[in-house]
Amino acid sequence: MIKAYAALEANGKLQPFEYDPGALGANEVEIEVQYCGVCHSDLSMINNEWGISNYPLVPGHEVVGTVAAMGEGVNHVEVGDLVGLGWHSGYCMTCHSCLSGYHNLCATAESTIVGHYGGFGDRVRAKGVSVVKLPKGIDLASAGPLFCGGITVFSPMVELSLKPTAKVAVIGIGGLGHLAVQFLRAWGCEVTAFTSSARKQTEVLELGAHHILDSTNPEAIASAEGKFDYIISTVNLKLDWNLYISTLAPQGHFHFVGVVLEPLDLNLFPLLMGQRSVSASPVGSPATIATMLDFAVRHDIKPVVEQFSFDQINEAIAHLESGKAHYRVVLSHSKN
Amino acid sequence: MIKAYAALEANGKLQPFEYDPGALGANEVEIEVQYCGVCHSDLSMINNEWGISNYPLVPGHEVVGTVAAMGEGVNHVEVGDLVGLGWHSGYCMTCHSCLSGYHNLCATAESTIVGHYGGFGDRVRAKGVSVVKLPKGIDLASAGPLFCGGITVFSPMVELSLKPTAKVAVIGIGGLGHLAVQFLRAWGCEVTAFTSSARKQTEVLELGAHHILDSTNPEAIASAEGKFDYIISTVNLKLDWNLYISTLAPQGHFHFVGVVLEPLDLNLFPLLMGQRSVSASPVGSPATIATMLDFAVRHDIKPVVEQFSFDQINEAIAHLESGKAHYRVVLSHSKN
Repeated sequence: MIKAYAALEANGKLQPFEYDPGALGANEVEIEVQYCGVCHSDLSMINNEWGISNYPLVPGHEVVGTVAAMGEGVNHVEVGDLVGLGWHSGYCMTCHSCLSGYHNLCATAESTIVGHYGGFGDRVRAKGVSVVKLPKGIDLASAGPLFCGGITVFSPMVELSLKPTAKVAVIGIGGLGHLAVQFLRAWGCEVTAFTSSARKQTEVLELGAHHILDSTNPEAIASAEGKFDYIISTVNLKLDWNLYISTLAPQGHFHFVGVVLEPLDLNLFPLLMGQRSVSASPVGSPATIATMLDFAVRHDIKPVVEQFSFDQINEAIAHLESGKAHYRVVLSHSKN
Repeated sequence: MIKAYAALEANGKLQPFEYDPGALGANEVEIEVQYCGVCHSDLSMINNEWGISNYPLVPGHEVVGTVAAMGEGVNHVEVGDLVGLGWHSGYCMTCHSCLSGYHNLCATAESTIVGHYGGFGDRVRAKGVSVVKLPKGIDLASAGPLFCGGITVFSPMVELSLKPTAKVAVIGIGGLGHLAVQFLRAWGCEVTAFTSSARKQTEVLELGAHHILDSTNPEAIASAEGKFDYIISTVNLKLDWNLYISTLAPQGHFHFVGVVLEPLDLNLFPLLMGQRSVSASPVGSPATIATMLDFAVRHDIKPVVEQFSFDQINEAIAHLESGKAHYRVVLSHSKN
């Protein structure tokens, strides 16, 4: 039996929950969980905001742990290896996206917490291909959020072939944004942070931003007209996108990773005259996750986390829901 | 004196108009006009739709002719050379875009017909850098439209590094679209044409399209769900963009070259889940124009044109305004 924490209904508090995972199947890995990040999408799933939740629902998709057991056909890890698991727990492996290395775009990819019991427990299972070995030297207690928040902001830098000479901006300095700032700084870019928080304005400079602009002040935003080669938006609310696009340089890219439900109402003319683009992407492939982990260790990039023990799980979730997480919440089975 | 045709007021008919161009300046070229295409943006300028027209206004920015005279500092052509001139008649040459080879994105680029007398006349002047030598073997009578319509659809294929293996679609089979189909076919792509015209459905297959889809039928559009790696929209009216974006494959690009004034109201989620992008661009650089001309000659790509003599100029304009141009109108000084 696996001991986990589950929501039994939409908006329910998490409760201890045991389940029998059955025999370990071919190509599967069982991970003994050491740490698991708490992501906003865990909250969305607990609260059935996307209408795809099944209960009991075991959240948790920023897993760090050790390989406890392996099914037939798993060769890339060994029992005892330190590994991580993110949003996806399996892929079809044969669609065009999978065959091209873009497993994260697989239309039938399995999610760690949709129709599958996630990482809020003592163990979790996933297809081996989605389980990525941790590089030596990584900080285990903070590594979990790299597997969802981290890869989400790192993947587009790879995909868009972002140049280290680029002037870049990050909209929203939260769980994702504070990682984007660190990655972009280490990438060699000139980094501007857009944030509405006075406290974060100081902190984001310490995280590596060269400049800050007050996102509550349209004039401050407009002052950067024509400046940025790349802007990544990590926020989940509608902003004045056309104002931000006016801060793109010719050939600049505006990239969304935060989910916004309202239509984007973009003006075409500024895109056309400046040969600009708007794009978006979800998490990243296993190969890009491995590349990110290597890059993060080399540049000492770590999520800033607040640690809770698993028996404080509802307190941790309430803290994240309050908007006060600083910057990412991680649950731990250890006693520190 | 240069003999030309000018609109003397907004919406005015073109009339014979003579002007003294003065001494030929450094870096300037004077072209003896043989042919000049008539583009929709000539109509927009005649009618002051963009509020930037000055009268007398001499339209014409799809010029084919010979070099009649050269100012000091012009070295890349000689008197008598066959050349073409498009939307831009000069560039600042020192901004970041110009220095990077993206003269078409120069914020202070000079336009052939904005604050400058264009190609509807016996001669026209431009900065040498914007005057591109024609390759041997090009068909002079149909080459003019390549310099605006042609480069507009060709440049994004270069800029997006479009692969010959791509499945592509063209929205709107008009002056731009019928060239996009030819270029994309020669590029090696599988080409689908979206058109609302029954007549054009037949013709576009002859131009090289592999497939046609009726753009007036939402079900026909939806039948291509997830298919295209690249879609170029050449139309100037608002369509159901989200429906078309649903026909993009993962990592697909939707590219606008037609100007649409209404906001694009794009849904973010399909862009994000499929790592898709939306982009746009204006004409192209002199280097890309030269590349396009070479490619066009090698693949026998020609604008389909209807020829009028310059003394039929108002008839030619009325024909274009009627929407019946097939597919591009060219004015000629020759008697054929």
